[in-house]
Amino acid sequence: MSITDLGSDSPPQELVADVFARDCGSRAAFEVVTSKWASLALLALGEGSYRFNALRRRVQGVSEKMLSQTLQALERDGMVTRDVVTTIPPRVEYALTPLGEGVAKKLRALADLLEGAAAEGALGQAAAEPGEEEPGEGRA
Amino acid sequence: MSITDLGSDSPPQELVADVFARDCGSRAAFEVVTSKWASLALLALGEGSYRFNALRRRVQGVSEKMLSQTLQALERDGMVTRDVVTTIPPRVEYALTPLGEGVAKKLRALADLLEGAAAEGALGQAAAEPGEEEPGEGRA
Repeated sequence: MSITDLGSDSPPQELVADVFARDCGSRAAFEVVTSKWASLALLALGEGSYRFNALRRRVQGVSEKMLSQTLQALERDGMVTRDVVTTIPPRVEYALTPLGEGVAKKLRALADLLEGAAAEGALGQAAAEPGEEEPGEGRA
Repeated sequence: MSITDLGSDSPPQELVADVFARDCGSRAAFEVVTSKWASLALLALGEGSYRFNALRRRVQGVSEKMLSQTLQALERDGMVTRDVVTTIPPRVEYALTPLGEGVAKKLRALADLLEGAAAEGALGQAAAEPGEEEPGEGRA
């Protein structure tokens, strides 16, 4: 247990983080990194840095707008860096921060497990039929 | 590189699973288990079996309808079992399958990492301010 003292009079905050707690930063971060496109973008960037268009090709099916919003959110969360290389034309490269690397590794372990299960045919009906209904937030 | 022969005599399918491929079962499963409520439900069930209402209290903020849909999807995917215990009144218990256990462990490792980062104040702005905009699919 480490104590983070944030400034003079303010008491130490976030001594215990709980992903189940609605108002905990770890839950917000968990929701960001596990969201559909963010998780795939993190997995892709776990392979190395990418330029925007190459990343878009790697993450099959993502729109330009959605990938752009996703990368902005991951940058805000301290998971991704955006580097403008001053070539002509300028090149924009996205890469993981150390925190992003850690998250990407955990997501990769999860993806490996599911890829293994899919290859063995161990996944159920919904997974075997992409496009089937799933618990999307849009149906709330 | 292995060759997947999708010929007439029903050859082995899904020899190579790739979570990036839009039409791969592993991607559909990845999207299901990382969706907002499914991931939290799997994390909770990783602690042990739950009755519906207890699970709903554990996963703060989930609606009855959404939790019900989420559990149905996880059952279809072979991650969760639904057991009706014939007491009076009957009791319905949810638990993880072995595949669900594996998935829950990977999600727990991810949650541990983010809880640690939150406790250290290492998360960025978006994560530190829950309720802030995030790359939700509803904004596509």
